[in-house]
Amino acid sequence: MAARRRKKPQTTKIQPKRAKNLSPGTVAYTGKKTTTVTELDIIDYSKEHFQRFETNNIQEAFNYEDSTNITWINVNGLSNTDDIVTLGNHFELHPLIQEDIVTTNQRPKIDEYEDYFFIVFKMLHYDDSEQLTSEHLSMVVGKDYVITFQEAEGDIFGDLRERLEHGKGRVRGLGSDYLMFAILDAVVDNYFTVVEFLSNKVELLEDKLFDDKEDPDITEEIQDLKKEILRIRKAVVPLREVVNRLEKIESTLIEERTNKYIRDLYDHIIQVNESVEIYREMIWGLMDMYMTTISNKMNEVMKVLTIMASIFIPLTFMAGIYGMNFDHMPELHFRYGYYYLWGAMILVFFGLLWYFKRKKWL
Amino acid sequence: MAARRRKKPQTTKIQPKRAKNLSPGTVAYTGKKTTTVTELDIIDYSKEHFQRFETNNIQEAFNYEDSTNITWINVNGLSNTDDIVTLGNHFELHPLIQEDIVTTNQRPKIDEYEDYFFIVFKMLHYDDSEQLTSEHLSMVVGKDYVITFQEAEGDIFGDLRERLEHGKGRVRGLGSDYLMFAILDAVVDNYFTVVEFLSNKVELLEDKLFDDKEDPDITEEIQDLKKEILRIRKAVVPLREVVNRLEKIESTLIEERTNKYIRDLYDHIIQVNESVEIYREMIWGLMDMYMTTISNKMNEVMKVLTIMASIFIPLTFMAGIYGMNFDHMPELHFRYGYYYLWGAMILVFFGLLWYFKRKKWL
Amino acid sequence: MAARRRKKPQTTKIQPKRAKNLSPGTVAYTGKKTTTVTELDIIDYSKEHFQRFETNNIQEAFNYEDSTNITWINVNGLSNTDDIVTLGNHFELHPLIQEDIVTTNQRPKIDEYEDYFFIVFKMLHYDDSEQLTSEHLSMVVGKDYVITFQEAEGDIFGDLRERLEHGKGRVRGLGSDYLMFAILDAVVDNYFTVVEFLSNKVELLEDKLFDDKEDPDITEEIQDLKKEILRIRKAVVPLREVVNRLEKIESTLIEERTNKYIRDLYDHIIQVNESVEIYREMIWGLMDMYMTTISNKMNEVMKVLTIMASIFIPLTFMAGIYGMNFDHMPELHFRYGYYYLWGAMILVFFGLLWYFKRKKWL
Amino acid sequence: MAARRRKKPQTTKIQPKRAKNLSPGTVAYTGKKTTTVTELDIIDYSKEHFQRFETNNIQEAFNYEDSTNITWINVNGLSNTDDIVTLGNHFELHPLIQEDIVTTNQRPKIDEYEDYFFIVFKMLHYDDSEQLTSEHLSMVVGKDYVITFQEAEGDIFGDLRERLEHGKGRVRGLGSDYLMFAILDAVVDNYFTVVEFLSNKVELLEDKLFDDKEDPDITEEIQDLKKEILRIRKAVVPLREVVNRLEKIESTLIEERTNKYIRDLYDHIIQVNESVEIYREMIWGLMDMYMTTISNKMNEVMKVLTIMASIFIPLTFMAGIYGMNFDHMPELHFRYGYYYLWGAMILVFFGLLWYFKRKKWL
Amino acid sequence: MAARRRKKPQTTKIQPKRAKNLSPGTVAYTGKKTTTVTELDIIDYSKEHFQRFETNNIQEAFNYEDSTNITWINVNGLSNTDDIVTLGNHFELHPLIQEDIVTTNQRPKIDEYEDYFFIVFKMLHYDDSEQLTSEHLSMVVGKDYVITFQEAEGDIFGDLRERLEHGKGRVRGLGSDYLMFAILDAVVDNYFTVVEFLSNKVELLEDKLFDDKEDPDITEEIQDLKKEILRIRKAVVPLREVVNRLEKIESTLIEERTNKYIRDLYDHIIQVNESVEIYREMIWGLMDMYMTTISNKMNEVMKVLTIMASIFIPLTFMAGIYGMNFDHMPELHFRYGYYYLWGAMILVFFGLLWYFKRKKWL
Repeated sequence: MAARRRKKPQTTKIQPKRAKNLSPGTVAYTGKKTTTVTELDIIDYSKEHFQRFETNNIQEAFNYEDSTNITWINVNGLSNTDDIVTLGNHFELHPLIQEDIVTTNQRPKIDEYEDYFFIVFKMLHYDDSEQLTSEHLSMVVGKDYVITFQEAEGDIFGDLRERLEHGKGRVRGLGSDYLMFAILDAVVDNYFTVVEFLSNKVELLEDKLFDDKEDPDITEEIQDLKKEILRIRKAVVPLREVVNRLEKIESTLIEERTNKYIRDLYDHIIQVNESVEIYREMIWGLMDMYMTTISNKMNEVMKVLTIMASIFIPLTFMAGIYGMNFDHMPELHFRYGYYYLWGAMILVFFGLLWYFKRKKWL
Repeated sequence: MAARRRKKPQTTKIQPKRAKNLSPGTVAYTGKKTTTVTELDIIDYSKEHFQRFETNNIQEAFNYEDSTNITWINVNGLSNTDDIVTLGNHFELHPLIQEDIVTTNQRPKIDEYEDYFFIVFKMLHYDDSEQLTSEHLSMVVGKDYVITFQEAEGDIFGDLRERLEHGKGRVRGLGSDYLMFAILDAVVDNYFTVVEFLSNKVELLEDKLFDDKEDPDITEEIQDLKKEILRIRKAVVPLREVVNRLEKIESTLIEERTNKYIRDLYDHIIQVNESVEIYREMIWGLMDMYMTTISNKMNEVMKVLTIMASIFIPLTFMAGIYGMNFDHMPELHFRYGYYYLWGAMILVFFGLLWYFKRKKWL
Repeated sequence: MAARRRKKPQTTKIQPKRAKNLSPGTVAYTGKKTTTVTELDIIDYSKEHFQRFETNNIQEAFNYEDSTNITWINVNGLSNTDDIVTLGNHFELHPLIQEDIVTTNQRPKIDEYEDYFFIVFKMLHYDDSEQLTSEHLSMVVGKDYVITFQEAEGDIFGDLRERLEHGKGRVRGLGSDYLMFAILDAVVDNYFTVVEFLSNKVELLEDKLFDDKEDPDITEEIQDLKKEILRIRKAVVPLREVVNRLEKIESTLIEERTNKYIRDLYDHIIQVNESVEIYREMIWGLMDMYMTTISNKMNEVMKVLTIMASIFIPLTFMAGIYGMNFDHMPELHFRYGYYYLWGAMILVFFGLLWYFKRKKWL
Repeated sequence: MAARRRKKPQTTKIQPKRAKNLSPGTVAYTGKKTTTVTELDIIDYSKEHFQRFETNNIQEAFNYEDSTNITWINVNGLSNTDDIVTLGNHFELHPLIQEDIVTTNQRPKIDEYEDYFFIVFKMLHYDDSEQLTSEHLSMVVGKDYVITFQEAEGDIFGDLRERLEHGKGRVRGLGSDYLMFAILDAVVDNYFTVVEFLSNKVELLEDKLFDDKEDPDITEEIQDLKKEILRIRKAVVPLREVVNRLEKIESTLIEERTNKYIRDLYDHIIQVNESVEIYREMIWGLMDMYMTTISNKMNEVMKVLTIMASIFIPLTFMAGIYGMNFDHMPELHFRYGYYYLWGAMILVFFGLLWYFKRKKWL
Repeated sequence: MAARRRKKPQTTKIQPKRAKNLSPGTVAYTGKKTTTVTELDIIDYSKEHFQRFETNNIQEAFNYEDSTNITWINVNGLSNTDDIVTLGNHFELHPLIQEDIVTTNQRPKIDEYEDYFFIVFKMLHYDDSEQLTSEHLSMVVGKDYVITFQEAEGDIFGDLRERLEHGKGRVRGLGSDYLMFAILDAVVDNYFTVVEFLSNKVELLEDKLFDDKEDPDITEEIQDLKKEILRIRKAVVPLREVVNRLEKIESTLIEERTNKYIRDLYDHIIQVNESVEIYREMIWGLMDMYMTTISNKMNEVMKVLTIMASIFIPLTFMAGIYGMNFDHMPELHFRYGYYYLWGAMILVFFGLLWYFKRKKWL
């Protein structure tokens, strides 16, 4: 049997971590320090107007606050906590929110404050080595601004930005609540992609199981799939609650006409969730299938052994009889004794073959 | 063991898809383009009046709107999204509804708008190769019209149309809400048929398991059945919620006298759902049964091996003893040594037989 | 292994059926046509008065309607749908109710109408061949009448009738609501009997499992028991909902003093339900037990094989050595070579025995 | 394998029974007739006053009714139903309550009447042969009296009586509601004892499993434990509902200050319930453990067989070669042929040993 | 197989205990008597003021009661119940609370009284021998004081005390409700640590399973992990309810601004809970994996046996044939008979090898 080439299971990513022994509200980054500079990507738009620029200077973001346009500030990089605190204080974000923004293992949730919402959610994607990775994102939604925070610059919102710029879709004419919806919609779209990728992995594994070729890694692949399902659920299930909450919130921040869109979003996230549950059940079923496959193979091995042994052990015994050296063994001196014996052995041979045939082992 | 002839599992159909990276509300067809022309099948009726005709011209549908009769517009073919948009805009359907009409993997649901309901549901049937296929349908129910959308022309509503035409049943004298009920009733009837077909498959599989004949495909058949159950539930469970919702809606669209029918419908869909759950449990039970069947067979194989080996190995040993060439082996020179040995061997033979008999292995 | 004598599993009875492709409200009988004549068994009573007679003439039932007494009309035989319709129209029963009366696979339920209740329920019993059969019953409860419908004449209500006639119990002095309670009470009593019968079957099966005797039918018996449990639940669980509903209904039909009895009935049906759940769990436990029993037996078989083979294969090898024909084999010429070898073989024999003893395989 | 010494499983005790075919409200005792005389144990107390005496005369109990003290009447023996009816009628108990008092398999429940509560509960204990037995108890709680009914005289309330007599605890100064609480508290204490006993049984079984010694009864012991858990739950779960109900009842019978105690009681019964669930899960885990233990043992058996057979079968073959009688077999005539062969055999022997060592089978 | 070195499973710690047969409200310590002296650690602080001292004299605690500062009294050691009663009576704690303080197996809960809350919770940690231990804590939260009770002096609150002393964090300027939050926050932080430790144990076990090395203790380690999970849930799940309750309480004790912190706490405890559920599922998955691993190994063992036996048993038979002593066996006298036979045997040998190769057993 070949040596194991298994990749290390990614259990470490599931365990909960938290900036320990710190006073609640302390802003301490818990992720991997991938970006040292905080980059801002600011979009300011209204029905007629569209402006976009990037900067590393937090202060520049404050200029747009008073404009009557919708302002979307996307913050890349959470490791420079001073910048986060500066920004947070300017927008009067509660210390607990500032803490949650940089606590990368925070569970998806929605917090309602008087003047704004705070939403935490997760972006999932399969990296190049087909490992599922999860990115921590958060979003503050105010009257005429949306601030999103992400760990590292990604291309998640590229498509949405383009729609904003080129005026495609409804998004330009509507308020910050519609922008919030559009962002969450992009996240749920992302989940659909992840689930589709997962479905391919499940299908491949199933095909492997149906093949006769043996692969001792299948157990581990199933276990890894189970873990991925668990991690996807960890992102999807709480977001479902968040969207459900959004649907029910009575707030002046959310306009009547946006409600239909949020309900639509809720339908989609329920659909993702259902698919995840279905794959979960299928993967557990795979384990059962694998067990029966192993048992079937063992059955087959046992049959070969039983047939070979049951046929040749009696024959060997017959040969052993006439290899004895007794002085008086009349058969040894028969003219055709040897041939008689062969006849008997052939009879036994086919008799047993017929027996196994009747038992349907052949 | 014979080569695998298994059909490819239909996992691909379970995975969620969605027109990706499009602005919400964009009307983009996601199904297979089976019909390129949008066909309309219009029925206009009242207690005394019945008219039916087919057309490819969307505009013709608009003539019937103002009549005081009930108008049922059935739209076949969703791939020509321009037609859908034209129709949708004419009836002032919300963009999200127009999107859902052509998004063939949309989950069953009900959306209530001020002037109409929008209901998504699924038609299931087993095709000629006994594969379960699912068709996306949706329905808009207004004051005096019902519009149904289906991917391809089917004969689902044929029976209902005939009842309308020949005035059988109550349907002609009642409003659009009763027509909606009659359509959903046809859908639930369809589920009964599907579940009946499924029950036959389960029964056949069970009979196969009870037969002794070996069939390595059984695991896969069980897995396929599990998937079918999952897919049926995916259509039935949300529709149950839809009908439950219908029962509770307070709307002028639904008349008092129709409520009894909707409750009846709810009873039926619960009955479908219960049957599905029962088959689900039975299929999981089949897997367990199959495992014990395999184990029982292995037990039997092992017994044959053990009996054969345990009887003939000692006998061979006895023969081996007297095949040795020691100079001094007194037994070899006994007058009846050979016969004594045969006696001993026969004794051992029957002794072991008796032992296995007592152990109830024979 | 003996040939299979298994009775055919009764799956067919679980599958849902429905008079297909008929307009809702169409009265079409779906059961087996056991009685062609509709028999009426009419009881008319008050505190002082008791009258009972049987007839095949539907019209006769109408005479009793106006009396101030309580009238109980028991209808035997549902196949003559014209009679049902006549009766139904006379008592102004809704078409859906008339349909449900003859739809023998209708799920237990309660429908509340303005002037009467409609209750569907199931009678269960084990027939002579120990097969669980289920009978469809329904009941209309009005101000001063109760109409019960059953597929074939049974002796279910015999005891109740006798109590009515001989004035035993409270039933004569109370209204139609108490009669309804008494009928449902008889049904729940019937469930207790069925569960008791089931408990005996489970116990017998358990004893079989604890015996060493092998029985390849055990898997199938367990599977059959699982199905019976599923079918009993199908009757009991919805009836529990019905009684729960009865408890909460605010209707002039149900008098205050009857409420205590209905609550008592609810306690009983919950108790039946709990017992069913307990047996369900026990049966699933039996499957596990059976699996370990098989494994234990296989273990024992393997041990016998291993002990026999491990002892005699080395001995045969030793004998084989001295059966060789080399010219120079000094041991063969030893004076006591043969005896030395026997000594060695006996040593090996007991050494291995001791080894297996220490391993606790003997 | 030793013969079975298993005690008969106690399934019979789980099955529901009911006085069948009797009019509801008929008082018919369903338990085992252990006591033929109804014994009364009457305690009459107030803060300053305490009186206790025993009698067989029901009438004597009525004297205490009018005193302003709290009266606790404990009834031992339910088989003499006339006494129960006399007592019940005197205290104006509803016929259904009188029926429930003597129906020993009645499920724990609470019934609220205008002037009193009626509570059914179960006492559990392990008898001398470590079988779990269950005793039916019921209690009527009125304004200034409590009546408890038990099947046979037990020592359950001995401790409570002593506390009443010696004025320990709060109980003397408070009303009948506190007495009711104190009685239920004694019952829950009893459950703690039972669960502790159960925990010891589970632990012992676990230790047995971890030992190598084989014990074919383990499956049955696990099954028996499962049944005991089921029976304990049957007593505990409904009582939890009862206490929960007590907490929420708005009645003049329950004083404000007693509420804290009832909440405390509720905490305790939840704790019992949680422990039961934990043991339940542990016992199901034991079954899995046992399966792996069996499989591990089989694996070990197989390895011994494989090693012995794989080493000696090839060696026997080698010896067999040189036991042939061909005229021309040059090796037989080699000077050191015999020794060469021994060398080769030793080589094969150690080669295979090394192979199995590398496979970690040794 | 090596002898068992397993540590005793810690089942005893799961079983519920309770000071039995005592009047409710009796203060009797149920834990292990680790400290005989009751130590008080008193902190008195306001925004400007901070004072801390330790004492064994209960009376000294009463001096601080009237100060307008917040007073935190930490009581170490519960075995001296007189002290607890003295303290309890001084602060007018209900007898049931005094009982719960010293009942070390009390389930986490919150009791609301008019002037104070009473909260029970558990501290978990892995001791030096990696055994999970649980410590009983309770807390009384009044207007301007908090009293915490712990079994033995631990360093749980060391960090919090330091933050208080050095004025770090918000804690000094806020009321007793914030102190309560800070204490519960430390507890939840502690759970994160425990879950992280657990995650490492699960990961190590998983790695062990993926290694080929055999370890018969794995079943027991899995069982132990299951128990640890059960015990962690027993502490976490009720605390979740407690915090949820805290969120909803309407009390003057909890200020508006503290609510945000309590919600944050709730998010964290949900996160702990989710992680625990995930590990739970993973551990159950490990058991399945282990089963397939065992089966796979058995399969491999069987194959080796089958290959060895199937190849050499027929060859031995062939050699056995020509070891017979018939007078007339022409082959024995062939010139190259011996070589022909070798040829045949080599053919058989490679033929079987090829067969097993084709079956992919090699």
